[in-house]
Formats: sequence, C-alpha cells, structure tokens
Amino acid sequence: MSATRSTAASRSSQTITDVRVTPVAFADPPLLNTVGVHQPYALRAIVQVHTERGLAGVGETYADTAHLIRLEAAARELIGLDAFALNQVRAVIDERVSQLTVTGGDGVAGMITTASTTDRVFSPFEVACLDIQGKAIGRPVSDLLGGAVRDSVPFSAYLFYKWAAHPGAVEDDWGEALDPAGLVRQARRMLDEYGFTAIKLKGGVFHPDEEIAAIKALRAEFPDVPLRLDPNAAWTVDTSLRVAAELEGVVEYLEDPTPGLDGMAEVATEAKMPLATNMCVVAFGHLKPAVVKDSVSVVLSDHHYWGGLQRSRLLGGICETFGLGLSMHSNSHLGISLAAMVHLAAATPNLTYACDTHWPWKTEDVVKPGALRFEGGAVPVPTGPGLGVEIDDDALAELHKQYLDCGIRDRDDTGYMKSVDPTFENTAPRW
Amino acid sequence: MSATRSTAASRSSQTITDVRVTPVAFADPPLLNTVGVHQPYALRAIVQVHTERGLAGVGETYADTAHLIRLEAAARELIGLDAFALNQVRAVIDERVSQLTVTGGDGVAGMITTASTTDRVFSPFEVACLDIQGKAIGRPVSDLLGGAVRDSVPFSAYLFYKWAAHPGAVEDDWGEALDPAGLVRQARRMLDEYGFTAIKLKGGVFHPDEEIAAIKALRAEFPDVPLRLDPNAAWTVDTSLRVAAELEGVVEYLEDPTPGLDGMAEVATEAKMPLATNMCVVAFGHLKPAVVKDSVSVVLSDHHYWGGLQRSRLLGGICETFGLGLSMHSNSHLGISLAAMVHLAAATPNLTYACDTHWPWKTEDVVKPGALRFEGGAVPVPTGPGLGVEIDDDALAELHKQYLDCGIRDRDDTGYMKSVDPTFENTAPRW
Repeated sequence: MSATRSTAASRSSQTITDVRVTPVAFADPPLLNTVGVHQPYALRAIVQVHTERGLAGVGETYADTAHLIRLEAAARELIGLDAFALNQVRAVIDERVSQLTVTGGDGVAGMITTASTTDRVFSPFEVACLDIQGKAIGRPVSDLLGGAVRDSVPFSAYLFYKWAAHPGAVEDDWGEALDPAGLVRQARRMLDEYGFTAIKLKGGVFHPDEEIAAIKALRAEFPDVPLRLDPNAAWTVDTSLRVAAELEGVVEYLEDPTPGLDGMAEVATEAKMPLATNMCVVAFGHLKPAVVKDSVSVVLSDHHYWGGLQRSRLLGGICETFGLGLSMHSNSHLGISLAAMVHLAAATPNLTYACDTHWPWKTEDVVKPGALRFEGGAVPVPTGPGLGVEIDDDALAELHKQYLDCGIRDRDDTGYMKSVDPTFENTAPRW
Repeated sequence: MSATRSTAASRSSQTITDVRVTPVAFADPPLLNTVGVHQPYALRAIVQVHTERGLAGVGETYADTAHLIRLEAAARELIGLDAFALNQVRAVIDERVSQLTVTGGDGVAGMITTASTTDRVFSPFEVACLDIQGKAIGRPVSDLLGGAVRDSVPFSAYLFYKWAAHPGAVEDDWGEALDPAGLVRQARRMLDEYGFTAIKLKGGVFHPDEEIAAIKALRAEFPDVPLRLDPNAAWTVDTSLRVAAELEGVVEYLEDPTPGLDGMAEVATEAKMPLATNMCVVAFGHLKPAVVKDSVSVVLSDHHYWGGLQRSRLLGGICETFGLGLSMHSNSHLGISLAAMVHLAAATPNLTYACDTHWPWKTEDVVKPGALRFEGGAVPVPTGPGLGVEIDDDALAELHKQYLDCGIRDRDDTGYMKSVDPTFENTAPRW
C-alpha cells in the first residue's frame, strides 16, 4: 500500500488551523444510582475546531482529568489535517493516544470501564469535523450520515431516585423521589412538560422489590407508555431472573440486570423480555463475543464512546446485520451532544426505541437557546447546515469559570455518596 | 416515530429530475471458469442520474434482463428525491423491488445466487448519488467515505484459463492459456504491462492436480508475488483439503474451494491458509452464520451486490469488528465501476489485500480515457470532484448499439460452453 496522505492542501480543503478544548461544569441534581449519587456539578469538555476558511465546528465529551490530557494531546495532532479526512484524523489520534501512559478518565463513574480509549477521544473531534463538513456544504449533519429518515427523534423520560437537595443546599425544583409515589410524581411532571412517550427508570438504588413496585406503580399510572428499568448490573443472575419474572410483559426491555457477557447470557436464556446493555457491550471488540454468547438482544449506542457518529452508524449496521435491537444511551450532557444524538438517530433507520437523555435535569448550557426543542417527547431534527447549534461565548466562559471554581476534576459518584454516608460501598452485584 | 421526509425542496437540494439506464455490451475474451466460458460480449448497465441544479452522476451494474426491469422500475421512483437522501433512496427502491415478481438477473452466471436484490439494485444509484454529492461539494467520493488512507489502490493480476479465440473468430491478442506454461506467459505479460504485485488464478476449470501445477509454476516464476486460487466451489471438502495441503505456504488465501458455509467451515478447520469467499457470504444476512460457524477468514467485498459504497464500508467495519480479513471481488466491468472500486478501497483502512479486477481483459469503455491508469499495479485515487470519470457520449451510444445488435440479453457462461461442447455440465462440486 502506498503512503498515507499527509496534507489536503491541493484540494478544496477545510484545513484545521486551531483546536480548543474547554472544560465546563454545570449544575446537576442529586440523582441516585447503584455506584452513588451525582455530584453538584457535571463535567463536560467542549471541543471547538476551526479551519483556515473560517468555519468552526463543535463537539462535546467527558471532562475527567485523564480524558482532558488525552483530548489536549489529540487536539495538537489535528492542526493541518483536513476536516473531511476523518480516517486520517482517527489514525493520528489512535497513534497519539497509544503513546500516553495516563490511565482512567472514562467519565462515567466507573460504570463503563473498557470502552475504546481511541474511540472516546476521537468522538468529539469527529462530531466537530462533521459540523464543519455540514457548514461547508450547506447541509445538516444527518445528510452526512445517509439522510434523515424521520423529522423528529423520540426520547424517553429518564427517571431517577433522587434526594430533595444536595447536602447543605435548598430543595431543588424537582424535590425528593425515593419511593414509587415520588417517581410517579416525577414522571407525571416530565411527561407533562416534554410529552415523552416512553419512560426509563435508573434502578439499582434500592432493594429490587422496591424497584419492582416502582415499575408497577408507573405501569398503573401510565398504562400505555413503554417502560424500562436499568439497575446498572446491581443484581446477581438469580435476582435478575426473579425480577424478570415479576416484570414479564411490563417492561419493553431490562437493561444490564447483571454484570458481564456470561451473566447476561445466563439471564437471557430464561428472561422473557429483551435484555439491553450499555455496560457489557461498549466497544467493537465486545460485539463478537456478545453475538457468540447471545448475551443481549438490544445494544445502547452512545457516540461518545463508540467513536463518533459514523462509527455509531457502523454499530447500527452491525446490530441490524446480527439481529440486535438498537437504542441510545445518555450521560449528563449539554446541547451539542443532544444535537449530535438527534442527527445520528434521525439517520439511523433501525434505531426504533426512544433514546435516553438527561436533558430535563439540566438548567445550564453552552449553546444559544432555541435550536433544540421537545415536541411530543421528540426533538425536531435541525435542518440548517452542520449540527445546527451555536456556542454562546458568554455561557461557555461562565461554565468554564464554574469548572475552575467548583473543584471537581473527576466524576466520582461513589466518593460523593461516601462523603454523605460513610457506610456506603460500591459493590456489584449488590443484591 | 414521525413520518419519513417526502421531499428535500426546502433545503439546498440536489433534487433528482432524470434517471437513465442504458444497457451496453463490450467485447470479452473466452475466459474459462467452472460454470462455462465468457460469451463474446459482457453486459453492463450504465446509470445516469441528473439533478435540477444541472449535476450528473454515474453508476454501473449488471445488465441481465430481470435486473434491467428492476433498475427501470427503481429509476422512476427516484424522481423528486434528494441525491443526499440515500437512506430514503434505498427505502423506496426496497419497497419497489419487493413489488416486482420478476426472478433471476443476478448477472454473475449463477455463481452468486442469493445476494440481496435490493442491495444489487440500489448500488448503481447510490454510486451515482455519491458522484453527484462529490461534484456538489467539490470533493472526491473517497472524502464522502471517511477520506482516502492511501494515494493509490493495488490490484491483482487476474489470470484465466482461456481459449485462443471465440469459436469462429480470429485468435485474440492474449492467445491460448490452457496449461501452466500458458498461464505463466499470461502472468508475465500482465505484470509487465500493469506492474501488478499480486496474482489471482480463476480455477475450477481443470482437474485440481493441473491447477496445483499451475500455481506451483507461477510460484517458481514469481517467487515473491502473493498468489490466490479461486475454483468457484468446484471441489468437495476432501478435494479442498488435499489442494490446501499441497498449496500450504504457497497461496495467501484459497477462495471458495467448496460450496456453502458448512463445507467451507469443514475445510477451514484443517486448511492452514485463510479461506476467502465471494460465494457463501454475499449478503448481510450471511454474516452471522459465517461468524458463528467460522466458515471463512476473508470476505471479498463487491459494491455491486453489497449495496453500494457506504454499505460496503459497513461490510468493511463488520469484517474488522469480527476479525475477518477484507479483499475485493470483480466481475467484468468498465471504468465507472473501477473508479467506484478505487474510491471505496482508498477509504477502507482494513482493505489490505490487492483488489481483483478484470480491467486488462477489456478493450472498450464508456468513460473518456485518462482518468484511470495503473502505476506499479495500483490505480492512483482520482482527486477531482465525484468519481472523477466522465461519460463519453459517443462511446456509450456505440456500446449500447452493440448491446442491441449482439443478441445477448443474459449472461450465460454455461449455455455458451454447451454450444461449443454439448457434453459440458455445470456441476458443483465438480471434483
């Protein structure tokens, strides 16, 4: 094979001249999960890529310390490359990342630990390059992914057990939700405000019997709304099977009841509902064993760790090819990520489940308002060039200052929980 | 999910206003294979797509009668769609094709019979739309596939047993090749003229011992050139294993020694070299059983039946994900297909084998000369907008007239062979 192209100077290029990585922090409520509780601020890194022709593209990702080190190292490698040369962008990032000795920085509180580092670092740059490509050709990003097959993308109401307030703070707007009644209240408000037509409950927080009761209370209150329960692998195989038997015909899928491909495969042989995952299949290397073991029947995509939008399309094609369902995972995120998720989902024909989003839980953002809105639980796909969102420079500066001031540098749900309840242990499976 | 977009009128669209499908015939030498012999003319259909903004894109595919009926039906559905809306283009073709009752028309002489009809019909239109997209944005098609990772694409010398001439015709330029000496002569000329650095022999024509001798003669003459042998499933499992033992360390892969996923899996357990296929894995539905059975270790892509360039990229990603090697198949083709193959191969990092091509066997074309050339056995990737090839209207008209005059309407290697040798039978496995 002949040599790799080194520059794009000879063509109608969008040569990258500047790349900025800005960590930000935004207020986050005390949402509970099996590893602990969300800290008062969630961290994100905003990536801004500029080209010699004056175009700018944006991406969004995690902002844990180790991840930021990798992002900064990767950013420097991109100067001089063409924003259309995504294979090359990924190759130089892969090479650079492999030279770094820093560890950790997955940004997901230890719940996903073995995703591809290269794909996680590549993702925000790929999204920013696609934003630039779309602007360069006057097309929405969805058109760079095969074209939208739906005008709007349905999301699910993402319910959390939560405290009334962060310790020492005044009660937040949503109030407490620690039992079925609290969750039903939370769901009612979320459906009223956003029009969601599907509900997901983050479980693994209380004894499975309480969570079964919560799901049944939601079913009673919302008889026609698809329900999902995600305990983040908090249960043994036996407990998973007991819950699966209790919730047969009640949930559309059960997400990560138990850890690992083998445990999931054991549950899958008896559970009547589909098993979904965003924990045991989080990188391309996990797909073959998952297929061979028949561990899951739905994979939750997430462009932040599956290597951007084009590789998430590849994941979608693999799911279609191997008979797996496709849904979409979310961490706490801002408007850039929502826009990227919407373009991807719009252009993925077999993404037939409502996507997850933490959107209702956030009160601050770095993008100018108005580009993204919910109608009937779905986000209309932006039709302007690129992602269709624009950075608000003042807001970005403010949330960056908040990052500098808040003192949080790595997501640590477990540590935060221990600071409140010293007896808390992060054990999996818990029940 | 909300409704599919029906038109692209509101955006900077490349709305399709006209689609033409033109069957052509070009002279083809008497190349032998296990099902018979190439007829005096090979058939192709040239697809031309025009947009309201005056852009034109081209694609190339098979031209068997049933395929032409499907192409014509599909073509009418595309008027009014956007050349960027490829998901939608495929969806309307899928729907239209499913309504047709016509059968057959695979264009490959019965050697591949179960590829996806939708993908086969979609392919030339997708290539034409990508050609339009590239022209619209001033970029080569490779940039629409993630960007070229190599400046030129290596091909293999594709050797055939052949007669000196079609019956009743004067001896052609290449002369006879019916024994090892004839094949070595053919290879020598092909390497001298094109600089190929890999050699493939189409086998399944003579007793396996003769073909083993031919490969060994090629090895002796070209000690450093990777060799491949492809008998198109002419052998039983036992014969395949005997040939595999004889050619251990001699061929880089053995292509389709025996029919079917199960037979190939049986051979694969003992054969020391990789087994490749373009017969038992020719559609996305074949991939899961092939992976589960471990039938093959190299898949030959071919955008003509894998659904165009983007779905061939998906195949490439699946091969990478599931640990399969990737090579590229060829039928008799013209310059549009070569250009498409080159852009695809250039943008597919894990396509590490030299691609197949029938290029040296053809003397006529529909594209203007000069855009595609071989240097050291490789084709430099066109860097201009789109595919980088241009239709020669006079040549297209001439080869269309040749189609009308030649009387051939369906590829029939077996029938043609029987017309020469009435005792010939198409049996598989033959030995």
